[in-house]
Amino acid sequence: VDPALVHHFFGSKERLFAAVMQLPVVPGEVLAAALAPGAREPGRGLGEHLLRTVLGIWEVAEIRATFLGLLRTVGSSEPAGVMMREFVVENILGRVALAAREAGAAGDAEAELRAALVGSQILGLGLARYLLQLEPLAQASHDELAAAIGPTLERYLTGVIT
Amino acid sequence: VDPALVHHFFGSKERLFAAVMQLPVVPGEVLAAALAPGAREPGRGLGEHLLRTVLGIWEVAEIRATFLGLLRTVGSSEPAGVMMREFVVENILGRVALAAREAGAAGDAEAELRAALVGSQILGLGLARYLLQLEPLAQASHDELAAAIGPTLERYLTGVIT
Repeated sequence: VDPALVHHFFGSKERLFAAVMQLPVVPGEVLAAALAPGAREPGRGLGEHLLRTVLGIWEVAEIRATFLGLLRTVGSSEPAGVMMREFVVENILGRVALAAREAGAAGDAEAELRAALVGSQILGLGLARYLLQLEPLAQASHDELAAAIGPTLERYLTGVIT
Repeated sequence: VDPALVHHFFGSKERLFAAVMQLPVVPGEVLAAALAPGAREPGRGLGEHLLRTVLGIWEVAEIRATFLGLLRTVGSSEPAGVMMREFVVENILGRVALAAREAGAAGDAEAELRAALVGSQILGLGLARYLLQLEPLAQASHDELAAAIGPTLERYLTGVIT
């Protein structure tokens, strides 16, 4: 596909993806807005804020279905597996790494490590909560998950990790 | 299958599973031994010790292949998906919950939550490191992962999570 055409009609590859998947919002754009300076409630850490944003995005049935469908294809060499990897790296981790830089990460390499750690916990939560339906994670409220996992993401984003 | 026959020939359903999968060790038994009191190096936290144990188990090619094969089937309703869920809950999380109880969890419900949190981070790490091959997690050493993720597991097992 001609990238110029994609840009003309959809604005970005990510928006084309959202349109093809019939998503009501563009996940990466919601994430970018949530991670923007000033988007947080006063006193709420970046980690908890990020987690609550992701939990909110997953509440949208069409998005959750798309996410779980992609998660099922992870590791396959089929196009859907490749798409999942691209989607995670470009649209999700790239934005988390940017937030880590703004929060004080010492360089791109450190920001990438921080983003990948965040990604590993968020993907694992999605896997455990929705696909494996492990209790009590499957039934846990956003508040319970924020208390348990928010500090993990906060440390991965801004704490001592080496 | 008659459970008495399984017990007679294999000792447990878990050992039958390991035999069928041609695993060189029984993963849950390695985990149980690692989590036993006294198995840790002095000064090393339970979280870091657990993480290093899992990373060591994953280094065994046959075990990693089986784990990744099961991870790919998660969420499917096929027998392999059901087997993955049973394997995780019975052989892995049950033992982690027991360790959380011994480390001071206030009751079975709390121990189960702690084990499920640990499971979510470990599954997410496996997914990110081996299936998605996200950098820099895919190339990270055990020491680097222990420094980054060990404290997360330590907190999930023994820290404040509510």
